[in-house]
Amino acid sequence: MPGNSRAAGTHHSRPSSSEEPPDLEDQELLLAAAYVSDAQYNRNVPFETSPQAIRLYHFYNHWTMRAATYFFIWVNLALALFEEPAVFPLPFLVTSIAEVLCLTAFFGRLVHFAKVTPQKVFWKDTKNICVMVTIVLTLIDLVIYGSLEAVNIRGVRWSRALRPVFLINFPESRQIRRTFRSIRNTLPDILYVFLLFLFSMMIFSLLALKLFGDRDLRTVEGSPYFTNILDIAFELYVLVTTANSPDVMMPAYELNWWYSLYFITYIIINTYIFMSVFLAVIYNNYRKHLKNEIHTLAYLRHHKMTEAFNILKVKVGTEFVVKEARWRRLLKVVAPDVSSSHLELLLRISDEGQKGHVDKVNFLRLADLLNIRVVAINIKKHPLETWMPRVYQSSTSLLVQKMVQHRIFVWVYDVIILINAIFIALDEKDSLISYAEWLFLSLYIIEILLKLYTYEPSAYFGRKQFWNWFDTLIIIAALLATVANTTIQARKYNSQQVLDIVLILRILRLLRVIVSIQRFRVIVTTLINIGPTMLTFGGLVLVVYYAFAIIGMEVFHGKIHFLDPGSGSPDALVCGNPALKDSAFAQGRYCKNNFNDLASSLILLTELTVVNQWHILADGFALVTHQAAKLYFIGFHVVVVILIVNIFIAFILEAFFVAYSLEKSEVETAIEKKIQELGVGVQEEEVQDGGLIDNMDAKDSGFSADEGDNKKKDLKGLYFRIASKKYKTVDTLLQQMFESEIAPEGKDPSLKEILNFSPKKVNFDNSA
Amino acid sequence: MPGNSRAAGTHHSRPSSSEEPPDLEDQELLLAAAYVSDAQYNRNVPFETSPQAIRLYHFYNHWTMRAATYFFIWVNLALALFEEPAVFPLPFLVTSIAEVLCLTAFFGRLVHFAKVTPQKVFWKDTKNICVMVTIVLTLIDLVIYGSLEAVNIRGVRWSRALRPVFLINFPESRQIRRTFRSIRNTLPDILYVFLLFLFSMMIFSLLALKLFGDRDLRTVEGSPYFTNILDIAFELYVLVTTANSPDVMMPAYELNWWYSLYFITYIIINTYIFMSVFLAVIYNNYRKHLKNEIHTLAYLRHHKMTEAFNILKVKVGTEFVVKEARWRRLLKVVAPDVSSSHLELLLRISDEGQKGHVDKVNFLRLADLLNIRVVAINIKKHPLETWMPRVYQSSTSLLVQKMVQHRIFVWVYDVIILINAIFIALDEKDSLISYAEWLFLSLYIIEILLKLYTYEPSAYFGRKQFWNWFDTLIIIAALLATVANTTIQARKYNSQQVLDIVLILRILRLLRVIVSIQRFRVIVTTLINIGPTMLTFGGLVLVVYYAFAIIGMEVFHGKIHFLDPGSGSPDALVCGNPALKDSAFAQGRYCKNNFNDLASSLILLTELTVVNQWHILADGFALVTHQAAKLYFIGFHVVVVILIVNIFIAFILEAFFVAYSLEKSEVETAIEKKIQELGVGVQEEEVQDGGLIDNMDAKDSGFSADEGDNKKKDLKGLYFRIASKKYKTVDTLLQQMFESEIAPEGKDPSLKEILNFSPKKVNFDNSA
Repeated sequence: MPGNSRAAGTHHSRPSSSEEPPDLEDQELLLAAAYVSDAQYNRNVPFETSPQAIRLYHFYNHWTMRAATYFFIWVNLALALFEEPAVFPLPFLVTSIAEVLCLTAFFGRLVHFAKVTPQKVFWKDTKNICVMVTIVLTLIDLVIYGSLEAVNIRGVRWSRALRPVFLINFPESRQIRRTFRSIRNTLPDILYVFLLFLFSMMIFSLLALKLFGDRDLRTVEGSPYFTNILDIAFELYVLVTTANSPDVMMPAYELNWWYSLYFITYIIINTYIFMSVFLAVIYNNYRKHLKNEIHTLAYLRHHKMTEAFNILKVKVGTEFVVKEARWRRLLKVVAPDVSSSHLELLLRISDEGQKGHVDKVNFLRLADLLNIRVVAINIKKHPLETWMPRVYQSSTSLLVQKMVQHRIFVWVYDVIILINAIFIALDEKDSLISYAEWLFLSLYIIEILLKLYTYEPSAYFGRKQFWNWFDTLIIIAALLATVANTTIQARKYNSQQVLDIVLILRILRLLRVIVSIQRFRVIVTTLINIGPTMLTFGGLVLVVYYAFAIIGMEVFHGKIHFLDPGSGSPDALVCGNPALKDSAFAQGRYCKNNFNDLASSLILLTELTVVNQWHILADGFALVTHQAAKLYFIGFHVVVVILIVNIFIAFILEAFFVAYSLEKSEVETAIEKKIQELGVGVQEEEVQDGGLIDNMDAKDSGFSADEGDNKKKDLKGLYFRIASKKYKTVDTLLQQMFESEIAPEGKDPSLKEILNFSPKKVNFDNSA
Repeated sequence: MPGNSRAAGTHHSRPSSSEEPPDLEDQELLLAAAYVSDAQYNRNVPFETSPQAIRLYHFYNHWTMRAATYFFIWVNLALALFEEPAVFPLPFLVTSIAEVLCLTAFFGRLVHFAKVTPQKVFWKDTKNICVMVTIVLTLIDLVIYGSLEAVNIRGVRWSRALRPVFLINFPESRQIRRTFRSIRNTLPDILYVFLLFLFSMMIFSLLALKLFGDRDLRTVEGSPYFTNILDIAFELYVLVTTANSPDVMMPAYELNWWYSLYFITYIIINTYIFMSVFLAVIYNNYRKHLKNEIHTLAYLRHHKMTEAFNILKVKVGTEFVVKEARWRRLLKVVAPDVSSSHLELLLRISDEGQKGHVDKVNFLRLADLLNIRVVAINIKKHPLETWMPRVYQSSTSLLVQKMVQHRIFVWVYDVIILINAIFIALDEKDSLISYAEWLFLSLYIIEILLKLYTYEPSAYFGRKQFWNWFDTLIIIAALLATVANTTIQARKYNSQQVLDIVLILRILRLLRVIVSIQRFRVIVTTLINIGPTMLTFGGLVLVVYYAFAIIGMEVFHGKIHFLDPGSGSPDALVCGNPALKDSAFAQGRYCKNNFNDLASSLILLTELTVVNQWHILADGFALVTHQAAKLYFIGFHVVVVILIVNIFIAFILEAFFVAYSLEKSEVETAIEKKIQELGVGVQEEEVQDGGLIDNMDAKDSGFSADEGDNKKKDLKGLYFRIASKKYKTVDTLLQQMFESEIAPEGKDPSLKEILNFSPKKVNFDNSA
């Protein structure tokens, strides 16, 4: 338990007689800030507490350092685009220098980390070992490949498949690591289901061999039907993925319709029931495991906040508290970009009684408070109103404003979009329709201008007004593209690329309908909310795809070529490989699906993930190499479709249940309550619908009339609201998922409790 | 709220001065029994309380009456097998007489119900109205079709699609109705997601039309690629189901690999995200709705038990109780087939203090107690031991018994099964292998005999010893089939059917491996546990399939014929319809997939459920009729794959989570505690593994030594255990699912609370 022992050590290294407030040393403040910041971002890196180490640690966590690391990780991954087989070929010397540069950067990051963390912890952390081993292996591979290259022997760049290791093992990709850990823990349970599934497949294979093997049946292609046990097993595995249904059953079904029952039974048992069981087992385990991890995280956060509190605390009366001045200094370090009004709000929430200090319970909540985005809305009059009040308040102007705010205005524009869609579907070669395009564009621009006239522009384009931004950007882009296109066409130069972009933007404009239909907006907002969590899976999928793509490129590279069928060459029909003659692969014109460069490989792997026709692709590559090549495709199916897609579904389901339930988290509720108490709250809908301006006067007067004078200092003229559930971090979402099932943090759970709760020893480093 | 008002009415119709125990009238006992029985089976039919009505009601619920109803429902549904287009054709006169008979039976059942239930309730119940309307419509259809037939005009037997109405609307198929209700309530939420999905499809269709429409691209079949907006929309809908991936993308991909991004984006948005959203929405709503229904059921059960208690109660001291004698009389009526020892056990649990009466709380629990199957195990000595104790207890015999109980015995037989599997895979024409077959069979028989020698036979073949039964039956069946086969072959008569059965049985024998591997047994047992609930979905699927099959037969019957390709007729290659020339349907040899009879239709619908190649099937039927025919297939996909399969997955997930969590329900725990208290408990594992016999003596002595003499009367020599979680009813499983979320029943929730809880007015009749 290195994290814990080190934390205990901190206690002693710090002068523990901080009862009288001597001014806090800068390094102690930095240490406290490091704890709070770690708690806020759920970082669990044990660090040395010497002044220099703390400063290094702050630097280690600085966004520039992290951005640089990510930059090098992406450069390293992207190298596959330029190495043989390449999309954009570069000489080996260039790519190898780039790779060595990346490796140096990774090594530098590692050394930096080693200086921050205690030696013992560093060498016990599998992440660091992994990175170091990978660096060494890559260097060895580079040297070997380079020397072989020098004597003109083509080697295998096997270490490239290890590149995702850097993405996984740097402390920043906690989410991906967590998912991998979760998969690893689910494996034993899945294994038995998988074995039973294989057993069931074996029984059915034997049945098929005995029932159909001697009948001298033929498939549609004329090959023997179900005569070889290995072929049968492969066909039946394909049937589980449904990719060869109903073709695989037709010969037997033609013989006697009773035989279809064999296949229906097989599909019910193996496709429906077993695949559901896989989903259930993965979902169940994934959820259980995630809950444990989140529970541990919550405990560690609590622990770190307590450390920070112990550094800053001062005795007032009978209890220890943090003085306001220190609290402010802390926040300046932890969150330098928080506006002063927001800071004031946080202080009001933390220091409820306005006693000039923050007590322990409220201090511990700080990490959560900082994670909740509060949007400050500076309500101003419309600039036109200030500039020329008479005109803006005239009856015509008011009528226009009322009109724009009216529901019918939205409807009219929905109808316009509909008509536009019909026009787009029609042939645009007609000049009348081409003119109509300009009409629609101007109608849309008028709409935005009218809205800007009615609503206060800085509120309309507020930081979180996603839909307004969306609306405007699409129109501006469409305008620019159309203008560009016209200019180009006027010069008799026809660019397909520009035309494509114009077309796409013209059609994307139709998406504006979503903005005006409330129910659609809700669904899309929910989807956007779970977007960041989906990105985790993007990372996970990338790692697996990358490794499979590199292996695929090494094994299948150059076996299948796409030759332009227009060339009339007979080779074009068999993808440049005579082994594919008469194969379903060549007949389906699948030549473009090859492993000849990274882009093609990734597209091919996507097709395999979609599952349909994967057996034809697998067959094709088996024909040009060896039947054992099918194992690569089966392996990909098991890993990606059975494991990862199911985890994706499990996660979407969980995230959706949380996003759908309207409850806010405890801390959010506390903040909201405070905002309402202070009379500076604004409902999100009001901002969205522009109702804000109407209600403002009423609110403003209510604020000054009802509230005590004490409360409104600094906060006047400002309104706050919680930036709804979008833009949440993955961790926040996860915490909310399991909030109800996790003991309240105020209860100060002992580490022992946590350890009893977790199924296995909590590894501080692994959960980092 | 007819149920409630009627219940209140009962109070008054009954002499309310039952403080002094005059002997209970039979009719009152019957009334109480009816309440308890309704509570036990969750029946919520309001019935009249006149003595005659109660007797009629008991008769209405008698199993013979229900079995008869089901019989007629199945006969009615099965008629489609014999009507044109028929699998086994029968003249119209025969089938119509059978149908009229069924209708009469349904009408009789309805009249019976009308006599039992109050008039007002009867006419307000949509179920009854539905059944009546369907009966009338069917009769009208029969008359019209019959008259047209008489003048040789072929009519349409449209009313056949209504037949599942009988299956849904009879009170016994509560589960299917509940699922339908749940779907209906989910529809509004799904609708908006579906509209957004269609909108997204429209945007992508327009994009495809603009991006690819003018490029003069060709598909593999040589037809124009993405030129018609309707064709594009259909292709893209098919792509959502993944059935035409990657073929649909290849022409564009060949042109430029950037275009593949269009398809990948489409698949990510529409296949992965939207389909997951459908699952999430359906799962979420289904769960919510189900919870409400189960909550209502729990309330109603509580209410009915209270009614029964009020009838039977007698004042003893300060509280109302039910005397033991009455309790016994009640149970004789409610559960006539409960053994006297089981009755005794129930009484011990209900009457904890052995005071000779049952108090209210314990009485209310009776319905739950009755639903838990308690298995009485009558532990006897092995018959051989009684018969010839010397021989059975001899050292050789004991060695054999020890050997059989040893783990190695199981392993040896696992190896034998494995070798057997290899022999089966080899060619059996070889006479050596054919002899080996007999060897294996005798080895298996020896195994069973040895087990019967070691374990007490009546315990080994106990009612709930599923795996032992399974084991033995498979061996006996294999033995019989092999003998039959040999006899037939000896007479030089070779029957394919018998041979097939022998082959299947020989291979099914391998399933015995599951029995010996503990983890496999657990998985299979879990699957069997959720079996009954899956049957509900079987019913649901049947209803939808039947309706679609009837419609399909009316529309597509006779358009496509399967002609033996061996005949060499050119018609055979186009399925007897020239419109199919060069179509993928004919090329795939799909002629057998037609709507020419019920069996073929159901198989075809199964293939459509599996999804793969459904577009080729749809195209085929569109070619021989009209393009609009595709709507039938799209409709089927939306209903079955998007709605029903997702509900199936939702249910499997829920059921699995419950089955996986090892917790027992409250009532089960109570029973188990009592069984243990009385010292008559037996662990399931002991029985299964045969350890029972070893531990018996120890237990027996403990029982007589520790327990008071009072407790063991009647129960001596008997052991009980709760018949694990298998064999549970659907309702019990559901109740357990939501048990933790539902208020404890003891709290006596008011009807008002329940109504507030439910999202809509609770309809007593609908939840029946």
